[in-house]
Amino acid sequence: MKEYFPGINKIKFEGEDSNNPLAFKYYDAEKIVAGKPMKDHLRFSMSYWHTMTGEGSDPFGMGTMERSYDGLEGMELAKARVDAAFELMEKLGMEYFCFHDLDISPEGNSLKEKEENLDIIVDLIEDKMKQTGIKLLWGTTNGFSNPRFVHGASTAPNADVFAFAAAQVKKAIEITNRLGGENYVFWGGREGYETLLNTDVALENDNFARFLHLAKDYANKIGFKGQFLIEPKPKEPTKHQYDFDTMTVLGFLRKYGLEDVIKMNIEANHATLAGHTFQHELLMSRINGVLGSIDANQGDMLLGWDTDQFPTNIYDATMCMYEVLKNGGIAPGGLNFDSKVRRGSFQSDDLFISYIVGMDTFAKGLLVADKLYSDGVLEDFISKRYESYTTGIGKEIVDGRADFETLAEYAKNNDQIKNSSGRQEMLEGIVNQFIYKN
Amino acid sequence: MKEYFPGINKIKFEGEDSNNPLAFKYYDAEKIVAGKPMKDHLRFSMSYWHTMTGEGSDPFGMGTMERSYDGLEGMELAKARVDAAFELMEKLGMEYFCFHDLDISPEGNSLKEKEENLDIIVDLIEDKMKQTGIKLLWGTTNGFSNPRFVHGASTAPNADVFAFAAAQVKKAIEITNRLGGENYVFWGGREGYETLLNTDVALENDNFARFLHLAKDYANKIGFKGQFLIEPKPKEPTKHQYDFDTMTVLGFLRKYGLEDVIKMNIEANHATLAGHTFQHELLMSRINGVLGSIDANQGDMLLGWDTDQFPTNIYDATMCMYEVLKNGGIAPGGLNFDSKVRRGSFQSDDLFISYIVGMDTFAKGLLVADKLYSDGVLEDFISKRYESYTTGIGKEIVDGRADFETLAEYAKNNDQIKNSSGRQEMLEGIVNQFIYKN
Amino acid sequence: MKEYFPGINKIKFEGEDSNNPLAFKYYDAEKIVAGKPMKDHLRFSMSYWHTMTGEGSDPFGMGTMERSYDGLEGMELAKARVDAAFELMEKLGMEYFCFHDLDISPEGNSLKEKEENLDIIVDLIEDKMKQTGIKLLWGTTNGFSNPRFVHGASTAPNADVFAFAAAQVKKAIEITNRLGGENYVFWGGREGYETLLNTDVALENDNFARFLHLAKDYANKIGFKGQFLIEPKPKEPTKHQYDFDTMTVLGFLRKYGLEDVIKMNIEANHATLAGHTFQHELLMSRINGVLGSIDANQGDMLLGWDTDQFPTNIYDATMCMYEVLKNGGIAPGGLNFDSKVRRGSFQSDDLFISYIVGMDTFAKGLLVADKLYSDGVLEDFISKRYESYTTGIGKEIVDGRADFETLAEYAKNNDQIKNSSGRQEMLEGIVNQFIYKN
Amino acid sequence: MKEYFPGINKIKFEGEDSNNPLAFKYYDAEKIVAGKPMKDHLRFSMSYWHTMTGEGSDPFGMGTMERSYDGLEGMELAKARVDAAFELMEKLGMEYFCFHDLDISPEGNSLKEKEENLDIIVDLIEDKMKQTGIKLLWGTTNGFSNPRFVHGASTAPNADVFAFAAAQVKKAIEITNRLGGENYVFWGGREGYETLLNTDVALENDNFARFLHLAKDYANKIGFKGQFLIEPKPKEPTKHQYDFDTMTVLGFLRKYGLEDVIKMNIEANHATLAGHTFQHELLMSRINGVLGSIDANQGDMLLGWDTDQFPTNIYDATMCMYEVLKNGGIAPGGLNFDSKVRRGSFQSDDLFISYIVGMDTFAKGLLVADKLYSDGVLEDFISKRYESYTTGIGKEIVDGRADFETLAEYAKNNDQIKNSSGRQEMLEGIVNQFIYKN
Repeated sequence: MKEYFPGINKIKFEGEDSNNPLAFKYYDAEKIVAGKPMKDHLRFSMSYWHTMTGEGSDPFGMGTMERSYDGLEGMELAKARVDAAFELMEKLGMEYFCFHDLDISPEGNSLKEKEENLDIIVDLIEDKMKQTGIKLLWGTTNGFSNPRFVHGASTAPNADVFAFAAAQVKKAIEITNRLGGENYVFWGGREGYETLLNTDVALENDNFARFLHLAKDYANKIGFKGQFLIEPKPKEPTKHQYDFDTMTVLGFLRKYGLEDVIKMNIEANHATLAGHTFQHELLMSRINGVLGSIDANQGDMLLGWDTDQFPTNIYDATMCMYEVLKNGGIAPGGLNFDSKVRRGSFQSDDLFISYIVGMDTFAKGLLVADKLYSDGVLEDFISKRYESYTTGIGKEIVDGRADFETLAEYAKNNDQIKNSSGRQEMLEGIVNQFIYKN
Repeated sequence: MKEYFPGINKIKFEGEDSNNPLAFKYYDAEKIVAGKPMKDHLRFSMSYWHTMTGEGSDPFGMGTMERSYDGLEGMELAKARVDAAFELMEKLGMEYFCFHDLDISPEGNSLKEKEENLDIIVDLIEDKMKQTGIKLLWGTTNGFSNPRFVHGASTAPNADVFAFAAAQVKKAIEITNRLGGENYVFWGGREGYETLLNTDVALENDNFARFLHLAKDYANKIGFKGQFLIEPKPKEPTKHQYDFDTMTVLGFLRKYGLEDVIKMNIEANHATLAGHTFQHELLMSRINGVLGSIDANQGDMLLGWDTDQFPTNIYDATMCMYEVLKNGGIAPGGLNFDSKVRRGSFQSDDLFISYIVGMDTFAKGLLVADKLYSDGVLEDFISKRYESYTTGIGKEIVDGRADFETLAEYAKNNDQIKNSSGRQEMLEGIVNQFIYKN
Repeated sequence: MKEYFPGINKIKFEGEDSNNPLAFKYYDAEKIVAGKPMKDHLRFSMSYWHTMTGEGSDPFGMGTMERSYDGLEGMELAKARVDAAFELMEKLGMEYFCFHDLDISPEGNSLKEKEENLDIIVDLIEDKMKQTGIKLLWGTTNGFSNPRFVHGASTAPNADVFAFAAAQVKKAIEITNRLGGENYVFWGGREGYETLLNTDVALENDNFARFLHLAKDYANKIGFKGQFLIEPKPKEPTKHQYDFDTMTVLGFLRKYGLEDVIKMNIEANHATLAGHTFQHELLMSRINGVLGSIDANQGDMLLGWDTDQFPTNIYDATMCMYEVLKNGGIAPGGLNFDSKVRRGSFQSDDLFISYIVGMDTFAKGLLVADKLYSDGVLEDFISKRYESYTTGIGKEIVDGRADFETLAEYAKNNDQIKNSSGRQEMLEGIVNQFIYKN
Repeated sequence: MKEYFPGINKIKFEGEDSNNPLAFKYYDAEKIVAGKPMKDHLRFSMSYWHTMTGEGSDPFGMGTMERSYDGLEGMELAKARVDAAFELMEKLGMEYFCFHDLDISPEGNSLKEKEENLDIIVDLIEDKMKQTGIKLLWGTTNGFSNPRFVHGASTAPNADVFAFAAAQVKKAIEITNRLGGENYVFWGGREGYETLLNTDVALENDNFARFLHLAKDYANKIGFKGQFLIEPKPKEPTKHQYDFDTMTVLGFLRKYGLEDVIKMNIEANHATLAGHTFQHELLMSRINGVLGSIDANQGDMLLGWDTDQFPTNIYDATMCMYEVLKNGGIAPGGLNFDSKVRRGSFQSDDLFISYIVGMDTFAKGLLVADKLYSDGVLEDFISKRYESYTTGIGKEIVDGRADFETLAEYAKNNDQIKNSSGRQEMLEGIVNQFIYKN
């Protein structure tokens, strides 16, 4: 069988003193951390789109990537990519992957042809999964690239497009189910508006909710047990996307009775485009019981678009894993690298180097987060800071026994208030210490 | 009686050919537009804080404003400001005002003294309201300036602060009720966090909800019939504020069963700090049935803080009034100028010129919006664009008679989709024509 | 001869009462404004790239544009586009166009083939120019799309790329010269860096300067009399581009003795990406004597990438034309529409509607700016505001007759300073009046 | 003598295993790194304004800081602050400080009184400096807080303000000189514009240049040998400040013949407000020979104003010290903490904790940067990447022996170009390794 990444062997853990860019320094898959193997905390996943089909094009330039399957086309290319994908995952020791329907096979000229193409490739993938033990973290459809979705998919002004999108999602849920996918994701790249001047936002929101209800009904009907996820993103490609951020999506889900149906797939760069930190979005999902899965990439805080860089920032990785630990883990979700090599990192080995850097960053983040969480330094500080709510007037407030009149009376007798420092700088210094030492 | 703005007479409508900066060019209060006087569409309100107490300081400089009550202090200053405020409103022909408790009287050294000071000034204001017919659009409390609120008010880590805030809001609702205020507003300037490292976001959110329930209970108890409003703002002064934007607040309200209790007070500059247009926030509130009132100011799109400039952008004013017309009016809310004269516009007459410019911008906006809406050019375009949802498969979708299987079947027979242009440029050109011509 | 835009006739001026989206409402080419025909103030130019080769793709989706030359390829497509371009310009009454080499003909497999292709198409263009009287505002090369330019062109780390870029620019200057182009533009889409970790910024800056000197030497040698222009842009596609904004470019040019060689081509959306208003960049260029030409488009202030929308904002158009009038005109530069129809505006007639909207916006802007400038209201305010520099100590300062000791002495005797209001709100109101009335 | 920070002892180095928030973990002042003591690389300086006079107010709230000199006023307060400042610096082992005139003594009612107050306090400071060996890194004036500077100082529209500013700077240079200050800094907080509608930018720029020439002339006259520095900042408080960033300032200085007179004081948060990384601004200054001094603080990348937080980000500190090492050191400049404790960190010990966290972050950054630089991993990568410029056609380009014709000829024979990966992800991973290990 053809080797698509010749010269690259299975990536080994060599420990933090290794200078080998093709070795793990922190990610030791079976090492027990906080009671289970690192790999079970991290549940790393390969993104099929960036990794196998990404060509390195941008709005001002053509593709640059050099791949050993260059020159192939159509189904031959699709088949080669399946082989290459599993070779890459095996060499990296990744146990999960994610895909859109269009990532794995060509669309063809009709819906029928599209589905036939999918079936052929899904057969291959199923075989590969059996051979390798690699699992499907989530599947999805691409309802944004084809011109038919120019004005949206489930929120399109054209009912034929809504129907087409339904057909696509139906098939995508079916193949996700067949492949044992643990989640199904919605990302609404064009579920939003370009200008309010031509948009019926109320109808589009209603239709979006209708669509999600129909999807869930169909999933139930065919026995798909996976988790449904929405991936918030505020903008790009659309000026405004309805799934702006976690709280926006919760506002929408709660309106339409969908709050128990769908959780969040939080993406780091989408968080920052919405004006939030990555941790903020993870935490808001966690405390609302909807932290479902994670897209781990990195944005450039000075650029206004989704750069989807491989994650190297140890602060973000640490606080992400801290939230995951507080959440009791991320399963059945995982940590999907929705990351693409930079356009200038066009060699095949850059793919491996980048995954290693990303996986190591999160492995180190897990190690730091575990120490930080088990030490209790932050949790203890917070408990102490809010302890006035555990006794006296604070407890009455929390227990619902105080009203404005009793509170006002209390306040009049306690109006010389003594607060304590929030200690932000000290706490930031402590996080640094844990990063340096662990 | 002392005249605080000598040399300035009651502002008259002189029509659009006037070059007099102290005359209205578009705002003709009694002129009938879309079936009622302009003033009843616009319900202009003066903001007591920026107008009467604003001194022109900024983080890098002291106050610059030159006022005829400079030199007074304490209650003498507070009383002078009442007279000056009503003089200004009468000269401008404004029928409404808004205030925080701290705007109108000094805080004193105890809660008791604060309330006594308030009572004295509220007496004066009540008299003035009777004499002039000027009404209170809304009242509120200031729960963010005093050091006791350094870590928040209803979301403070200190239960004594929660109690103090309750006492403040209790009194503020009482005086709002006494003065016949049509609304009561919550703006959570420090209801958020500076760093997640020291914050229990879950408890703070719960407490925020508890507080709002208590406020409503108390309002009901004393018979306050006004509308409750939250004013979304994403950040500033706090790094993250829980009332980020309309959809975030709706996500919160729906979680805690508050969705029928509280509507939105939309502020233009807060919208843009959250990454939205002013119209977006108005529209999202409108279609969710929670468009309560409006703070009409203007931000600088290239600056990252709340500049609160007097509104002069005709596009924003037009689309704002378009949303108001679609909403069937803004009452019992109004259009409050949460606007401050620029630090460099420190002369007393700048106050009048700025209000006139702002009022005229919205008056012109109303005239344009009325023509645009009654012409139907945008509404007709949108109806046509979405008409596929009124028959056939589209109607089945909307009526809930389609499922994924029938939709997929339909799509297979209708997979060569024909879309129509969204015509964004044409529609922008049409809006321009309506602005130029009306 | 084939008609590429059948059903669209030559666009006529019908005046501001026209509701015809395919008619001019303000742009009356021969109408005399401020002493010359509107067309000579505006010097409108078509951008070949967006207009003829733009397909409507974006980072998340394929092309959507429907054009009558769809289906053609290679040189046949290139030839059809020449015909279509001149048909469009004639129908719109545009007298200028701009192009990159790659817009007009395919690159082929070698530099030799590229140049041969160019020669064939330039012959066709030259004929069309003679037939129609349409002129070339500026030519340029595309040194950013091909993978060879992945790390830059004149600032590439690879000297072979520098040489290739030189060959491209040499040819592009030659064809610009042959076609009588009035300007030659440099836009450094990848002249910058992605990360400082791998970049020798000092060498790259030196090489950039070397390249510009060589370009000028060659232009002189072949007798090209046109103006050289740099088009500042801060980022996108590159993280940081060396031509960040006007002042950055001036800092660079003055270091390398190029300040008399190159002027600015100011683009509206590039200004805002750099954190400036469009007027700011025009004004900074004007007062430094380097306002060369203008790319008139429009960005979305809430999006962090270059949306290149057709311009419809009357404020921007007015202040742009105000700067042009103060500059004594923009020739030999012009007003090039570096604008693309929205991806959702994919019909052929959207091209015409969009150009009409854009041209009318600037025509109206010219009319307003002319009245504003000839009225003198802003200029008079400014003269008065700074008049202290025309006499006394102010004049001594300006004339260089004061030093710190004389100034300190003066200040001690004049330390109770009286300033005047800056009147920002009043001036913004006045600009509105001029827009509404003209 | 009164102790202003009782209970806090001289801060000791306890090493990285220390959990004591009042001990250094990395900053060991006398430890030799790269050939000299850490303190001589870092040249840490206290900012008098944030540290001694900062009260914790913000645009929405009053001061919160609790200090042992609370309650004092006027000159008594000023004197107490001198004692407290030197106590703090001695306890922290800081060898430098910086101040504006207004930080150290009250302004009084006349220029004469202001200067008299200054003289009294400068006497005290001079004594303290002699006693402690603490030195003045730089002095400056405050030309932005007083209402007289509402429209600018040297760029004011009022010549009397220009004169007043000259008097202030004259005195500030004198006292800086008297105290042996190694630098004099200009920060133009209001040297810019609020709106172009009322501003003569050309005259304001000319006047700014005139002012700097006069300042230099006076410094020369009195024998001040210190370095002149401009501190770029793009905006805030002013909408646009003329000293936007390093390249903008260089464009200005080179126009007016000031490029050899003034260097840059780079501030981290100002860099990010201008859309740049901290390292970018340091590097652009370094390669242009104008890296003069550093203000080390930290901004919040999601907030649009200057938060001036104490620096805790190890990436920024590392790359800052890397640039300092490449620059051959920062003397006679230093590393001034233009940082303020968060409003919520209002206790006195927060001051110490924050300085320790900030100093340790930069000490660790120095240790990492030293290893990174001495290892040569980045430098070697870059040398190799650009090596084509050291031979053949590349060397001809650099040596000025190639022209467009020879380059085009070369390119025709070398048009199948082979580039190499930029390896961004690998390099980011390497930086992480150096941070974790050093």
